[in-house]
Formats: sequence, C-alpha cells, structure tokens
Amino acid sequence: MAELRQDIVTGCWVAVATERALRPTDFRKPVVSTAPSMDPAECPFCPGNERSTPLEVLAVRPEGSEPDTPGWQVRVFPNKYPAFESCEVCEPGTKLFPRQSAEGSHEVIVHSPDHEASLATMAVEEVELVLRVYRHRYDANCADPQIAYVQLILNHGRESGASLEHSHSQLFGVPLVPPLIRQELEGAERFERENGSCVFCSIIEAELEAGARVIASNETFVVIAPFASMFPFEVWILPREHQPSYGMIRDEQLGGFAEMVRFVLGRYREEFDDPPINYFIHSAPCGGGEYPFFHWHMEVVPRLTNLGSFELGTHMTINIVTPETATLTLGTDTLS
Amino acid sequence: MAELRQDIVTGCWVAVATERALRPTDFRKPVVSTAPSMDPAECPFCPGNERSTPLEVLAVRPEGSEPDTPGWQVRVFPNKYPAFESCEVCEPGTKLFPRQSAEGSHEVIVHSPDHEASLATMAVEEVELVLRVYRHRYDANCADPQIAYVQLILNHGRESGASLEHSHSQLFGVPLVPPLIRQELEGAERFERENGSCVFCSIIEAELEAGARVIASNETFVVIAPFASMFPFEVWILPREHQPSYGMIRDEQLGGFAEMVRFVLGRYREEFDDPPINYFIHSAPCGGGEYPFFHWHMEVVPRLTNLGSFELGTHMTINIVTPETATLTLGTDTLS
Repeated sequence: MAELRQDIVTGCWVAVATERALRPTDFRKPVVSTAPSMDPAECPFCPGNERSTPLEVLAVRPEGSEPDTPGWQVRVFPNKYPAFESCEVCEPGTKLFPRQSAEGSHEVIVHSPDHEASLATMAVEEVELVLRVYRHRYDANCADPQIAYVQLILNHGRESGASLEHSHSQLFGVPLVPPLIRQELEGAERFERENGSCVFCSIIEAELEAGARVIASNETFVVIAPFASMFPFEVWILPREHQPSYGMIRDEQLGGFAEMVRFVLGRYREEFDDPPINYFIHSAPCGGGEYPFFHWHMEVVPRLTNLGSFELGTHMTINIVTPETATLTLGTDTLS
Repeated sequence: MAELRQDIVTGCWVAVATERALRPTDFRKPVVSTAPSMDPAECPFCPGNERSTPLEVLAVRPEGSEPDTPGWQVRVFPNKYPAFESCEVCEPGTKLFPRQSAEGSHEVIVHSPDHEASLATMAVEEVELVLRVYRHRYDANCADPQIAYVQLILNHGRESGASLEHSHSQLFGVPLVPPLIRQELEGAERFERENGSCVFCSIIEAELEAGARVIASNETFVVIAPFASMFPFEVWILPREHQPSYGMIRDEQLGGFAEMVRFVLGRYREEFDDPPINYFIHSAPCGGGEYPFFHWHMEVVPRLTNLGSFELGTHMTINIVTPETATLTLGTDTLS
C-alpha cells in the first residue's frame, strides 16, 4: 500500500508506504545514548549546582528561599549557549546575502530537582507545574517587543538533540515567525475563510466522530494520530477549547493537559523502551489577537527512524506506519 | 555572536550561533554505525546476489553479458520496498483528509560491485560513471507522465538514513513537486523577475569574487559553503553553466562534477572520520522548459549534529558553524 496524504493545515503531502516497514533495519532500537550517565554532582541542572548556570529568571521554590540555591521544584534560567541573542556589531546584509541581529531569548526549564525524573514518570501534578511554568515564561517572553514568536520544546534523549540528560525543556524567543508556523497560519486562515470554522476544531470534531485516529481524550484535551502524520507514531495533543495561543490556557485546563502529556510520553516509554522524543507547542505568534483562526497544540514525535536525504532535501517524508496503526498500538479509549 | 541569515532562494532564515559550539557535547563523533558489517555473501547489492533484488532496469556491463548476473560496474533496479507505487484500491479523500495514490517510482543505483567502495575513495572516472547513470535514470523517469519531480539522493551511513552499507544512491519519482523544491522555484522565479538574472548565477558570481565561502572550483563547477547554511559544513556544488535541470548536464561537464563530488566527500571523510552524509540534487520539475529561471545543484550535508525539536517544529535551524569557518576547514583554493 502506498498513498499520499495531505495535511490540510500545512498543505504538505506525506507518502505512506507501509511495506517499507518490512525492511529488516527499521525500528531497530535506537542506539543507546552515548552520553555517559552524568554524576549528579557534576550536573549543572542538579540542586547545589545552581552557580553553574546563568541566574534564574523564575523558580518554583518555598517562600523566602534564596534564588539560585537548592529547594526549588522547577527552575528557569537563560541558556548558557543561547541560540538567540543580539550581536554587538552586526555586519550589514546585502541583496544576495540578507542578515540581521539574532535578537531574542533562549531559556532552559528544568522539570524537577531529581536527576532521574522524566515527564513520563513524574506525578501528573508535577507535570502540571511544569506546564504552568511554560505559560508564565510564554507570556513573559511574548511581552518582549523584539520577540515575534515563542517556541516551547522538549528534546528527550541524545538522538533527539538533548545535550544534557537531566530532564528539561527549552523556550526560544524568535525575532521572526518561523517557516513551519507561517505555513500553519496560512493554512488555518485559508480554511477559516473558506469554511467559516477553525481547521483544528473541525479536525477534532471529525476525528472524535470517526474514532480511528483517537488515541486518548479527557474533558479538556484530545490526543490523535494526525491523518497525514509525517513520522511513525506521531501524536498531536489538542485542547478541545478553541484557543489561538498557549498563553491563553486556563488554570482549569492545565491538569487535563498534564494528564495527556504524561500519558503519551508514558506510552512511548512502555512501547519503545524509553526512545528519544521531541515535542513542540505550535501557538499563534505573540499578540495572539491577530490570529483568531489559530488553535494551539502540541506535536509529539518519537525518534524511531533516521531522517534521510529525501526528507532533508524535499521536506516531504515517507512514513512507514499509518496513523491508524499507531492508534491501535498507542491507544486507549478514554482516560476519563 | 548570534545573527540571522536568510537564504535568498528559499527565504528561510537560519540562526548562526557559534558559541553553542562550545558545548562539550557537540561534534562528538557520531555513534559508530550499529549495522553489523554485512558479509558480502549476504549483501543483496553484491555481485552474485542479483536475484535478491528486483530485476535491473539498467546496468553498465560488458556487451552480451546477461542481465541480473555479475560483471556490471553500476547497477540500477526498483527498490524492493518502494516509497512510491500506485495503490490498487485507493480510498477517496475528503475535504479535511485529502489523499491520492502514491504513483511514481523508487530506484536503487548501486555504485560499484565492490562492497567496500565509496564515492569518496573510488576513482573519479568511476564516480563519473555513476553520475552518467544518474542522468540516464533522471531522463527516463522524467519521461513518465505520472512523475512531476525526480529526486536523486545519497544516504551514506546508518544515521543518514541508509539501511544497507553497500554504497548506493536512490532515485524517487514523485507525483508532485515537493515543498522545498516549490520554495526554491518560487524564490528563483521572484529573483529573476525582480533582477533579470538567475539567483544561482548571481550567487556564484558574488561568491567567486569575494572568495570567503568558495571551497573549491574547476572549469565546470563551483563548490561553496552557502551563506545561510542550515547545517554545519553544508556544501553546495553548482554548475557554472546555467542549466535548469540535471537532465541537461553535458558529457563534457560530467568529469568536472565527478571531481567535485569526490573532493567534497573525501574532505568530509578526512576531516570527520567517515561521517554519515546526505546529498541531494535539486533540479527543475520534469519538463524543465517551464522553469528557465532554475539552476540545478547538489546540496551536501555531513550529519554531525542531531536535529532537535526546534528544527522539526519550526523548519528553522540553529547552525553552530559559520560557512566562513567551514570554508577554512574544508577549502582548497582551486583544483584546476
């Protein structure tokens, strides 16, 4: 079976070629991380080593406890090696070679003082606290006039891009709206214009009715294997309520979001023996009011296969697992 | 130093953040391939095992020798696990979930009968023969009315997506023009409309004049580290002559192209101890006559860092090596 499926939001087509899964080399367990398990005494993200990182910008810690000392539950500080910061002396760009200063921000959000903790095994309330901190940092960074878009991400495992094993997320304050976000915005705006409804709300409704790609759901969130999944076992976690921006998530939704995030990461961990995982939250650009047609969501990808030249060179992917199969593997009917 | 650079062709911005290269974990030698070195007796791409593959569609072999028997120098056959093939019974798409049959082709081009050979170490004449076979298969596939775009690629090494170690390329006959190609076509067309010249010809001219990003050149080809390189040590190999499509490469250019391909792959091998490598040829869609503004070229990427959530989730990258540094590392003045 080989078919092409189109993501109605981005317009991108994916080749679904399940026979390729028969190749003997697929789904080999990813190489065990070559990162030597770090001694917590050396880990810059562990309590007691707060001086190894830049000064914290936020920490959930007992009232009256000193910043940059132990006692915190979640801790946020600027990345020591930032991807975005202003260049003091910027060379001017030219017509052929445009360039500008990489204004912006880059923060690290450490999920727990426990070096061995992971979002898949922490209590739902602990995950909820992390997601609450996300919202705080999302809002704080969006308020910076130099930042056009805030990208929250998780890299779990060396092959996913993580450079330190102590569980953490990252926030990028980007001075422009990145290409994939632009594509989603354009697709969502076009759909709304042509159909008078949000494309994500429409997808949620259609998927809940059909059921074949619904992995889990609770009162506030729905977890689906997207129709045009680019990667095997890709999952989207969507709020049932229409909200353009992650900054708009309400207190009453945080618990339901935490439950779904923990559920998905837990299922990957069980099914694929703690694989490398990427997730990222797609949200409206800062100043969400101008993007009423958008609907924030989290996309989650276990890194089970290697990206090759076809993917790098075309931005199409060849997916060897249908989302319907992924749903049968990962799914449960409902959690609540 | 952190700056944003824009690729004038695709319009994509890249964050160049060289301080991130100071992180202790970057440029760790990629994990040694987990592929057990395959016994040539078992290798489906080795001479004597021709019956393990689909029937050959082309082979460079002594006149009179039987197809699908040993004696060939380069051999081409359909991929046993094709990414593109028609589905017999296609489900109809819907407004929210568009789908179509994945018509097209997927071929394997084995570079040499020698299980240990690689494009970096083969003779230039042998590489030239492979590139000549590329042109033949490019033309043959482009002639298929179901194929809109032909993508030629190399995956070298497990982490680059290769599933078998015996050196080979792949050709994908895609029934639509993939997103990244569309982006390049739109950028090249816009530049030509606004400036009256080919954007790639303009880049070649400007780079040769400035020199800081010219890695090598000969009479027919130029090798540069592109201004907005998305990946560390990314390289483009461009024909000096304006040609929209790879099918247009002339006999007299094949040797010069082979020299540059072998040079780049050889430099990576020396510098990074045989790293995983991806390359892909960007060419005008089939029926090149409609795309006179395009200029085919090869993009080459050694896979020295892991792609993380930021890259997957935004289609922006953070590059920790400037192309000027890459040029100093890889470069030679001229080869001829």
